[in-house]
Amino acid sequence: MQLGLIGLGRMGANIARRLMRDKHDVVVYNRSLDKVKALQDEGAIGVDSVEKLVAQLAKPRAIWVMLPAGNVTEHMIDTLAGLLEPGDIIIDGGNTMYKDDMRRAKALKARQLEYVDVGTSGGIWGLERGYCMMIGGEDKVVRHLDPLFSCLAPGLGNIERTPGRDGRDDRPERGYIHAGPAGAGHFVKMVHNGIEYGLMQAYAEGFDILKTKNSDQLPEDQRLDINVADVAEVWRRGSVVSSWLLDLTAIALAKDAKLNGFSGEVADSGEGRWTVDAAVEQAVPAPVLATSLFARFRSRQDATFADKVLSAMRFGFGGHVEEKK
Amino acid sequence: MQLGLIGLGRMGANIARRLMRDKHDVVVYNRSLDKVKALQDEGAIGVDSVEKLVAQLAKPRAIWVMLPAGNVTEHMIDTLAGLLEPGDIIIDGGNTMYKDDMRRAKALKARQLEYVDVGTSGGIWGLERGYCMMIGGEDKVVRHLDPLFSCLAPGLGNIERTPGRDGRDDRPERGYIHAGPAGAGHFVKMVHNGIEYGLMQAYAEGFDILKTKNSDQLPEDQRLDINVADVAEVWRRGSVVSSWLLDLTAIALAKDAKLNGFSGEVADSGEGRWTVDAAVEQAVPAPVLATSLFARFRSRQDATFADKVLSAMRFGFGGHVEEKK
Amino acid sequence: MQLGLIGLGRMGANIARRLMRDKHDVVVYNRSLDKVKALQDEGAIGVDSVEKLVAQLAKPRAIWVMLPAGNVTEHMIDTLAGLLEPGDIIIDGGNTMYKDDMRRAKALKARQLEYVDVGTSGGIWGLERGYCMMIGGEDKVVRHLDPLFSCLAPGLGNIERTPGRDGRDDRPERGYIHAGPAGAGHFVKMVHNGIEYGLMQAYAEGFDILKTKNSDQLPEDQRLDINVADVAEVWRRGSVVSSWLLDLTAIALAKDAKLNGFSGEVADSGEGRWTVDAAVEQAVPAPVLATSLFARFRSRQDATFADKVLSAMRFGFGGHVEEKK
Amino acid sequence: MQLGLIGLGRMGANIARRLMRDKHDVVVYNRSLDKVKALQDEGAIGVDSVEKLVAQLAKPRAIWVMLPAGNVTEHMIDTLAGLLEPGDIIIDGGNTMYKDDMRRAKALKARQLEYVDVGTSGGIWGLERGYCMMIGGEDKVVRHLDPLFSCLAPGLGNIERTPGRDGRDDRPERGYIHAGPAGAGHFVKMVHNGIEYGLMQAYAEGFDILKTKNSDQLPEDQRLDINVADVAEVWRRGSVVSSWLLDLTAIALAKDAKLNGFSGEVADSGEGRWTVDAAVEQAVPAPVLATSLFARFRSRQDATFADKVLSAMRFGFGGHVEEKK
Repeated sequence: MQLGLIGLGRMGANIARRLMRDKHDVVVYNRSLDKVKALQDEGAIGVDSVEKLVAQLAKPRAIWVMLPAGNVTEHMIDTLAGLLEPGDIIIDGGNTMYKDDMRRAKALKARQLEYVDVGTSGGIWGLERGYCMMIGGEDKVVRHLDPLFSCLAPGLGNIERTPGRDGRDDRPERGYIHAGPAGAGHFVKMVHNGIEYGLMQAYAEGFDILKTKNSDQLPEDQRLDINVADVAEVWRRGSVVSSWLLDLTAIALAKDAKLNGFSGEVADSGEGRWTVDAAVEQAVPAPVLATSLFARFRSRQDATFADKVLSAMRFGFGGHVEEKK
Repeated sequence: MQLGLIGLGRMGANIARRLMRDKHDVVVYNRSLDKVKALQDEGAIGVDSVEKLVAQLAKPRAIWVMLPAGNVTEHMIDTLAGLLEPGDIIIDGGNTMYKDDMRRAKALKARQLEYVDVGTSGGIWGLERGYCMMIGGEDKVVRHLDPLFSCLAPGLGNIERTPGRDGRDDRPERGYIHAGPAGAGHFVKMVHNGIEYGLMQAYAEGFDILKTKNSDQLPEDQRLDINVADVAEVWRRGSVVSSWLLDLTAIALAKDAKLNGFSGEVADSGEGRWTVDAAVEQAVPAPVLATSLFARFRSRQDATFADKVLSAMRFGFGGHVEEKK
Repeated sequence: MQLGLIGLGRMGANIARRLMRDKHDVVVYNRSLDKVKALQDEGAIGVDSVEKLVAQLAKPRAIWVMLPAGNVTEHMIDTLAGLLEPGDIIIDGGNTMYKDDMRRAKALKARQLEYVDVGTSGGIWGLERGYCMMIGGEDKVVRHLDPLFSCLAPGLGNIERTPGRDGRDDRPERGYIHAGPAGAGHFVKMVHNGIEYGLMQAYAEGFDILKTKNSDQLPEDQRLDINVADVAEVWRRGSVVSSWLLDLTAIALAKDAKLNGFSGEVADSGEGRWTVDAAVEQAVPAPVLATSLFARFRSRQDATFADKVLSAMRFGFGGHVEEKK
Repeated sequence: MQLGLIGLGRMGANIARRLMRDKHDVVVYNRSLDKVKALQDEGAIGVDSVEKLVAQLAKPRAIWVMLPAGNVTEHMIDTLAGLLEPGDIIIDGGNTMYKDDMRRAKALKARQLEYVDVGTSGGIWGLERGYCMMIGGEDKVVRHLDPLFSCLAPGLGNIERTPGRDGRDDRPERGYIHAGPAGAGHFVKMVHNGIEYGLMQAYAEGFDILKTKNSDQLPEDQRLDINVADVAEVWRRGSVVSSWLLDLTAIALAKDAKLNGFSGEVADSGEGRWTVDAAVEQAVPAPVLATSLFARFRSRQDATFADKVLSAMRFGFGGHVEEKK
């Protein structure tokens, strides 16, 4: 099947590669053309403008936009909307806010254009492991694109099957779902990332407790010098907390159990924030997901104004002067 | 190797079975003797008293106590201490608080008895998957017991190896660690459970957000009817949040996506509480682990006194009367 | 000074009364006219339509809209915008989201209309204590309205002065501030409510701990039967936690220390939610404010889907069946 | 009435002063004798040993120990226990853990000595405002000491009375309570401090949100430059969040709205930690109190190991390198 692909960052390029491996035709465009050239060398058809990309594709066209979420993607979709013809399909594979998907799908529908949103998990590991995809859009359009999704997804692999799935939609088992109408894909992906933050923070706090059990602030006979690399490794083996994130932690700790290479300033992406906003909007108690997000905010500050307010109050009522470390 | 085993609950009985499969000699005792009889039928030597158990074992004896943590275990260890001889080994495989291990090891040492604590993860799945074990005790004693641990552990299996582990202690890769002196095993197991609570709560909040996206409290054009069983399934396939706990969630949701069989009153065991206490004692920020514990406390109450205090204040300053669901 | 007032709910009617006490002229309109009649009897000029209200007022008109936030207020402001003349002033005294203020002020400015937003705290106590007001708008407009704000505010009263305020803007000491351009008033009020939620939850949790210290789940010799009404009272007297919210708690507990009249389903208003959204948008760690909001969400549910997911996982890995209360 | 007082730190010395103002006889001892000398000059009887203190007092003796909680206090009480006679009373006015009170009271009872624990709030402001006291002990002993407590307490003052207190124990209104048997005083004081942490954190987060509304990370047209000193001041005037802690915040912000003098490393005392431990022990959801404690732990660290674990995982799954501030 034929696909136009706009945006050849790490994700976009690997999507192209995985599709080409499976004999799909990929027409690629990227603002900086050296990346187009590179993919051309691997078998893609490269073009140097969006117009040419559109011209190269057979109707109904399918164009996958793999650009940074926000203005860049928005602008590209506007541009495409002006070039495409009824029945053509725009796929947004970036990290778009699901309400933007809903809005866009409605606007494009008025012009008889189809819109599909795809949230992907798997990052840099996707070329090898396949992309876990959460897809939103109209049923017939998503079905039409199935050869692409089926190729990009991890497939059944050697992961044990969940009992009770016989006779059901088999796409989830092969690593992709049609989650609902436009926006549903990115909504599910958003919650995925919110959960991811919570899982990560749970491990992080636990390893911190293990590490600080050897702190010189504890009485000597209460200290334990735990080998955290070995703990991460053993938990991978039959424990209740085994997971892919734990695998990654074990890899990192095997390299350097002190993690000296990291300062611990942890970025956050839109999805974690939007998940908290969604919880607030839906009146769902999500203290762990919110707290995990806030821990990241805190990690990027030396001292918060909040902390200074606390110190100022303590000074006020008790004459307490801060005890420095 | 020979092992005395006291306590034939689900865990204890399966430990005996897994050892017997591997041709170890197991002498078993249990208060209710029908369980002793059952294991005898499977090849164990059964006895009907602790004294006989001790008499059956060759020196230095190794006796694994697999009883409910707290008074029951404490009492059994006191009893054994009165019967055993210098060099004999008591193994506490239950869910003991690590400070109790530290105290006991010290007391038993004065009588030349050895004490080893083993925290195990894997629960009812252990017979099949093996037990992930975290062990505390003196090095030479833990080494002496190695044939048992090696047999009970899951082994390498088909889990991908962590890069950088060549030339290191290979026990973690085979599913058990010697974490440190007495208490260290249960300390690591305790933190494991603390993390487990956090992981579970992160998934739980996320699935709640997915579920309530279809709530009739949202404007109709904002609702999405997400198939949570399919979401759990697809996330098992190459996503960042794949884990064994997610596998279990997928199984449960495949059976009943509404989870109608569960009322949602969630018990908590000692370890989750002790992890929070340890964080407090060590001055480690652990808001996610603590919040996860508190969510369980909350799940078991219809209304808290705290909530009534909030309602009373609101009535006080705004004349707000509670709006019932 | 003359003021038009739209909306004669508890707040609106009391604002009219407090202004009339101080000899201001108030022209009032309300959808249900019996409330207009009531205020007329107390000295206001009553009208039965928005058009008549506008006709009654001298230029530049000042009209205070005191309606439920959201569509009702939005619609009224649109209506007024169609009736007013350049230089006239619309005051939104409701609980509007500050971004709506910013948007409206900009739109009205294009029509040479002025917009002022007023967040008020004090609720039903305002007639007596005065309204603590946080005001957003252009400086000259806010100055123009000063006689009204000065009258509605609590004034210096017998509250001890803060050292260091001599020579500063004295409006804060008299109970109102000009917080900045349009939106600033409601922004500060929003944060006020966010804090309010946090304060309330802190007291609520504390009183819950006092109450449950007598729980039969504790060993008998660890229980204490604390008189929570007396505790609330004594803390009002020189303790660090004395506050108006504590005064209200003391009143409620003096009436019924068990708070049996309250089921504990705690509503939340927009401001608490928007505060969390603002924290997320501004990357400020606000775990306590968020957690307080989530506790309210939780208070209104019998069981969450999240809790059922936890139960389902526990059943999956441990065969744990829920233990009912 | 006569009182022996051991420990002339800020609190102890002011207690002596307040009692002497009211013509009570105070015999004082302190390890460093210059403080004894200072109080002697103000009218106290000074002694240079505990033995002499005991000798100076008429039976039944009442001795108030005002020393740092923990070993110092424990040791002094042991010393006193060896010197005192049946019927004598030891009062612990420090910040003792309530379980230590329970234990001590039981041990002293066996020697016919009485034990009373007094938690006090008010800190350095107590001499002027009076001490808010929470008292544990036997009824007849607490009654016997009433002249002292009545003198030290703030008294009715000009604080508005709570409706419904007529005919009740009037001690709470005068600023002290008999909370229950030994330990109850410190238990209530402990929860007081736990609440204090929560209240402080709520204000701190709120002011942080106000402050960062002017951050250059927000789009320019979304920023607001809020005068936080004025906000603190106005909220003191009739708002729902007025409190003594807010008064202190207003004082601090009036001095320096940027709080540049504070680095924001916030200490925590035992009580905040014990409150969380109590919540855990009693299965009370206390996420706000716990989170407030954790925020203080966090404030004292540059980077946590937890944060580094997060960074390491992010690097693992996404190749994300930390973006430095």
